[in-house]
Amino acid sequence: MEANRQQRPRVVVIGGGFGGLNAALHVAKGDVQVLLLDRKNHHTFQPLLYQVALAALSPADIAAPIRRAVQRKKNVEVLIGNAVGFDLERRLVRLEEGDTVPYDYLVVATGATHSYFAHEEWAQLAPGLKSVEDATEIRRRILLAFELAERESLLEGQQCPLNFVVIGAGPTGVELAGAIAEIAMHVLSTDFRAIDPRRARVILLEGGPRVLPTYTEDLSASAQKQLEKLGVEVRTNTRVTNVEPGVVYVGEQRIDAAVTLWAAGVKASPLGAALGVPTDRTGRVIVDDRLGVPGHPEVFVIGDLAHFEQDGAAVPGVAPVAIQMGQYAAKEIVRRASGQAGKPFRYWDKGSMATIGRSKGIAQIGKIHLSGFLAWSAWLLIHLIYLIGYRNRFFVLLNWAWQYLSWQSGARLITGSDQLPGWHSHHEEAESSAGKRAAG
Amino acid sequence: MEANRQQRPRVVVIGGGFGGLNAALHVAKGDVQVLLLDRKNHHTFQPLLYQVALAALSPADIAAPIRRAVQRKKNVEVLIGNAVGFDLERRLVRLEEGDTVPYDYLVVATGATHSYFAHEEWAQLAPGLKSVEDATEIRRRILLAFELAERESLLEGQQCPLNFVVIGAGPTGVELAGAIAEIAMHVLSTDFRAIDPRRARVILLEGGPRVLPTYTEDLSASAQKQLEKLGVEVRTNTRVTNVEPGVVYVGEQRIDAAVTLWAAGVKASPLGAALGVPTDRTGRVIVDDRLGVPGHPEVFVIGDLAHFEQDGAAVPGVAPVAIQMGQYAAKEIVRRASGQAGKPFRYWDKGSMATIGRSKGIAQIGKIHLSGFLAWSAWLLIHLIYLIGYRNRFFVLLNWAWQYLSWQSGARLITGSDQLPGWHSHHEEAESSAGKRAAG
Repeated sequence: MEANRQQRPRVVVIGGGFGGLNAALHVAKGDVQVLLLDRKNHHTFQPLLYQVALAALSPADIAAPIRRAVQRKKNVEVLIGNAVGFDLERRLVRLEEGDTVPYDYLVVATGATHSYFAHEEWAQLAPGLKSVEDATEIRRRILLAFELAERESLLEGQQCPLNFVVIGAGPTGVELAGAIAEIAMHVLSTDFRAIDPRRARVILLEGGPRVLPTYTEDLSASAQKQLEKLGVEVRTNTRVTNVEPGVVYVGEQRIDAAVTLWAAGVKASPLGAALGVPTDRTGRVIVDDRLGVPGHPEVFVIGDLAHFEQDGAAVPGVAPVAIQMGQYAAKEIVRRASGQAGKPFRYWDKGSMATIGRSKGIAQIGKIHLSGFLAWSAWLLIHLIYLIGYRNRFFVLLNWAWQYLSWQSGARLITGSDQLPGWHSHHEEAESSAGKRAAG
Repeated sequence: MEANRQQRPRVVVIGGGFGGLNAALHVAKGDVQVLLLDRKNHHTFQPLLYQVALAALSPADIAAPIRRAVQRKKNVEVLIGNAVGFDLERRLVRLEEGDTVPYDYLVVATGATHSYFAHEEWAQLAPGLKSVEDATEIRRRILLAFELAERESLLEGQQCPLNFVVIGAGPTGVELAGAIAEIAMHVLSTDFRAIDPRRARVILLEGGPRVLPTYTEDLSASAQKQLEKLGVEVRTNTRVTNVEPGVVYVGEQRIDAAVTLWAAGVKASPLGAALGVPTDRTGRVIVDDRLGVPGHPEVFVIGDLAHFEQDGAAVPGVAPVAIQMGQYAAKEIVRRASGQAGKPFRYWDKGSMATIGRSKGIAQIGKIHLSGFLAWSAWLLIHLIYLIGYRNRFFVLLNWAWQYLSWQSGARLITGSDQLPGWHSHHEEAESSAGKRAAG
């Protein structure tokens, strides 16, 4: 790097998600030089990814170019690149191509990815939902499943099963299951001639005893009831033992699955382990009360990559935690750079909420528990407020209003594959397509 | 197929572009059963594809699900599938997987694709713009070129050349070149810290003596002037002799090219040749004055796949021609099915227009020749009117209004590749990525 950039403390932030973006934006208020590094050029509003997967929103509605998000902060540089390791002693980040980036303060915020619990071969058969690419791939599979059923029916006169199996009933699994049921019942119902999309079955499998297990029992029960009202078959205490093309196994039981989706587990980004400090069993870095790592107070680990305990439990891997951690790390760096004493981090839980379909949900805000339309309204409001980028907020709101009034779905495109899959072997093609992406 | 569907004349339309979609929608007014077959599930508004390539619009803004477009026509079935051949004697369309679809009337409207003039190896190095996938790939390459330049500058302190080479100065080439120049000058200019996007060079290469050769000479000259005002370097009478990763050759001259785009030629869909009737040298089917083929009056070939001569010249491959041909074929089928005499087809040329950047263009409407803002306004109005789907019209208008007022670009996302390209060998990666897509 050029020497003349080095006068002010140099802060390197890795990851442009909720944690990293907030860290970069807030630390830039200080007299520092910031470099924000990400593999992608866009920040993704992950809580709304399922709406892209369900063809309700376009990728650009929920993703904002990182450069635009930091445009007004002239002391923030953005670098699109892949960090692969560190030299903590020399304070260097190593990039994939052998370049290094020096720092005075480092914030690592590379988040989490799907965990298939040592069954990596399931990844191609049951994609998870973490990125825009995941969302468009899931969209492609869901829409294609209806097309295949219509085709079988038109050409062969057969009504083949049309099951959507969602594995894992955390917030993402619940959102996906609810939204699939709704588009089948309402959005697609007038689109087809030979099949009735309403005969689609949505099956939500959960290994534990209840859906949304991080919520209280009354809200879990309410969520399950709301899901069932939408037509989702909820099966708790049900462990998936194998996933094959077109089939999910629960012990001896075979469940036909036109599409299988994975929402059952996450693991930390491998960059956590590259720090060479203690991690938990999912690979998250165990951080102290300053979100630091042993021996290196200039290094912060935040967001889904951090294992931070408060009041005897690890804080959850959700956007508000990442945002607060990013803001904390920023303030802490500015404090220390100006010689002030630091303070420990504390997460302030403003509540949590999950949405079920287009007008249902649950919310838990302190002692207040909401269900149904009220919870959904609160969810909508809060997500619009948090959406990054005014253009997005404006367009997403319009898009939602339009859909709500018209029951139209805005982005019902199957893209990404020039050729059609072999119709009688579509599971293999879905597989090879995902394989290509993963290798890409 | 089931026998009970066969009572009314069965019309099969292959292709959901401007020609096929209009044929299906209009013929459905008659007492017929329609099957619309396409490889993709969406109609693409091709005249606006370049706006997706330039990150101004999202794919869903300019593409509409075919099922939605025909939703109200209960006698139209949609089948997503790949036609590979015909049995004209038995009146059957053959699908890829061995299925066949019977017809009483057939409309073939599968359009055109890029022609690299026997240099198919250039396809990966210089993508053309025909589909949503092409547009997002071009978007990825353009945005990535700026990111690579920024990275080189940040890490190595080097200012490497940032040239965008567009081959072919027909409407698509002119639109791409003008729009790239504009985003470099205005949209991206405040996004980067280490490079100045305004130093990007846009080079438009045309083999013939003038840009937009299908227009009159005065309009060509005006278009060239408007392009040059935007900073585009226009080189006419310039034949590309070779395309290599990062380089375009014009004879002995090497032109560095961060991104190379192809807008130089088209050839007909291979389904034209599969009809086994005479074709022209670009593979278009030579049709008679009823848009029919020899010996088979029940078969119509329309749109870019048809070579139709009127007043001594072939009509051009543009949307209005395809739309009028689709409407004609529909009426002709209804006429014949009810025993009426047919009439020959005649193209009514309402004029043509091309856009240059966000407020310039040319238009030729009979004897009226327009240039600059007036031409652009006419273009905008007409394209909004023709946009299929009310949701799209509404959102595209808003998106444009927003961009026009804010100079923001809405869909500036780099997607489609999980991993970053190797930075020092990005041309190879772009290549292999395009290769994967083509093989997909």
